[in-house]
Amino acid sequence: MDTVSDFTLCCPIPISQYPQVLLAHGSGGKLMHHLIEKMIGPAFSNPLLDARHDGAVLQFDGLRLAFTTDSYVVRPLFFPGGDIGKLAVNGTVNDLAMCGARPVFLSLGLILEEGLPMDILWQVIRSMKLAADAAGVQIVTGDTKVVDRGKGDGIFINTAGIGVIAHERVIAPQSVRPGDALLLSGDIGRHGIAIMAVREGIEFESAIESDSAPLVEPVSRLLDEGVEVRCLRDLTRGGLASALVEIAEAAGVRVNIDEASIPVRGDVQGACEMLGLDPLYVANEGRFVAFVARQDAQRALAILQAFEPQASLIGEALDGPAGRVTMTSRIGASRIVDMLSGEQLPRIC
Amino acid sequence: MDTVSDFTLCCPIPISQYPQVLLAHGSGGKLMHHLIEKMIGPAFSNPLLDARHDGAVLQFDGLRLAFTTDSYVVRPLFFPGGDIGKLAVNGTVNDLAMCGARPVFLSLGLILEEGLPMDILWQVIRSMKLAADAAGVQIVTGDTKVVDRGKGDGIFINTAGIGVIAHERVIAPQSVRPGDALLLSGDIGRHGIAIMAVREGIEFESAIESDSAPLVEPVSRLLDEGVEVRCLRDLTRGGLASALVEIAEAAGVRVNIDEASIPVRGDVQGACEMLGLDPLYVANEGRFVAFVARQDAQRALAILQAFEPQASLIGEALDGPAGRVTMTSRIGASRIVDMLSGEQLPRIC
Repeated sequence: MDTVSDFTLCCPIPISQYPQVLLAHGSGGKLMHHLIEKMIGPAFSNPLLDARHDGAVLQFDGLRLAFTTDSYVVRPLFFPGGDIGKLAVNGTVNDLAMCGARPVFLSLGLILEEGLPMDILWQVIRSMKLAADAAGVQIVTGDTKVVDRGKGDGIFINTAGIGVIAHERVIAPQSVRPGDALLLSGDIGRHGIAIMAVREGIEFESAIESDSAPLVEPVSRLLDEGVEVRCLRDLTRGGLASALVEIAEAAGVRVNIDEASIPVRGDVQGACEMLGLDPLYVANEGRFVAFVARQDAQRALAILQAFEPQASLIGEALDGPAGRVTMTSRIGASRIVDMLSGEQLPRIC
Repeated sequence: MDTVSDFTLCCPIPISQYPQVLLAHGSGGKLMHHLIEKMIGPAFSNPLLDARHDGAVLQFDGLRLAFTTDSYVVRPLFFPGGDIGKLAVNGTVNDLAMCGARPVFLSLGLILEEGLPMDILWQVIRSMKLAADAAGVQIVTGDTKVVDRGKGDGIFINTAGIGVIAHERVIAPQSVRPGDALLLSGDIGRHGIAIMAVREGIEFESAIESDSAPLVEPVSRLLDEGVEVRCLRDLTRGGLASALVEIAEAAGVRVNIDEASIPVRGDVQGACEMLGLDPLYVANEGRFVAFVARQDAQRALAILQAFEPQASLIGEALDGPAGRVTMTSRIGASRIVDMLSGEQLPRIC
């Protein structure tokens, strides 16, 4: 279904196969991809939406703006290294940064559950204010709804954001070329493990803190220094693996990554093993990948390492098959990396 | 609390008085006003947010854009004359129109409850597409989250919107002057009664349908015809009364309305009496008020009546006391009209 003429009364997802929405439809993995590609994307199809980027790039004569939205339903509301308010600012700020934009304005939509302690609401609002100041954005418009007890879960937050794109580059999956270098901005897996540990009551020797952080500065630096940036993507739901498969599909390239070059902290690796998780699929809230022109790879790496010493060159884009992501393991074997299947960690953001 | 120095750890709403969020904090009435004025507004204070308009007016050299957001939590999801999808498009489109903007782009944030029938989701998506086409807007970016069964209520939708302001006027409460005429774009109370009737299983002789509709056309016409428009406001949660009190407060004027001139359909009036509701406080989703310069009142009325024959001149702005709204009753008595107190109809939009 991809034309208006197909826009019928009939549900484009086979009801016999998926009669109901599952948690995995919000996982960032295969089922979410299916829902977007089969139902939501075709229904609203237009060139901006069809770009399937972290945000839409809007043209107003002479001015380019990025526009994006995310809802946040993380539980628990507070966790080591952050809370839903900090996530709701940084997540949307980062989606704008991934479009190569400088984030400027946010909207704030609150859905509160009746009975939420007023002081909890205040802690979240306060955290949003601190995060907004840290990221250099203003919250300029908002809305508050309250739902009956048992029809929500404390606080859900939506933020939409507008950023200014002050350069001419097209930073999008479509710009990735075979031969481009693939950089990762730091170690992976901390956000998901931090959430999981609180939720499951698991204690580690030292607390694993979420990596939640605004990514505006490293992205600005890459652009200001003239690095030929092709595509940026932050590694939230679905983790590194799902992000790479999405980009490889949209860009029509193959991507190969080198397992040994992907930084994972020892305690995170240990927690993943204990919980049966693969760090490639664990969510991050302050990490991104950058595809850059090969000749700029070392310069880009130095810039990213100035922010996070663990930033690494982890792979490259290659000629087809389009959408294929492979990983060279520590012992030299090659395996296919797929998108997250099912739901690994629900409500991670 | 209105400076950064007051931005403390301490909840600015007295916990002893309001230990928890109540349904009425989302009603559009006094408690919501209190939450916004005491907590959310001061926390994020900036000139754009402080304007307390339906949306923020953003300046980019030479270009003025309106930016707004709303979440939709209406139940039931489907009702006579509309559904949550239609509301989610028209509500945000109308907030942009109330800033004097032509709505152009929407974002879409879905929060789905696990177990939602896939076909229901499709009906809502389809309805959004039809409403977006009717209002002339594109949905260009989105996000989907799924929460566990019992932690949501089918579908919550957030839309944020961007519109272009193609004129020089400042359409805002601050522009209202004593002497301005007050127009109402049609009969009031239908949306709230339509929802209430379904929810309570009340049957009328003929179904009362929601007035949900985009308001872009009548607003554009007023502006294109050169009517000196001072302020526009759509009459959603809290109804006509709450909207007028909010504007009178922000504008620093008194407003007087004439009860006999306010159109309420007979069946809506009857339903209100049966349910113990005052139509002045019942939500609408396709009605607005316009404050216009006195000399343009008749011309503006003719324009609005071309869209809705029941559009009326219902009152005027007067010299103080600031924030006071009075109503001259059918028998000539005058009474004070207050903002909605408590929660009349929860989850109306």
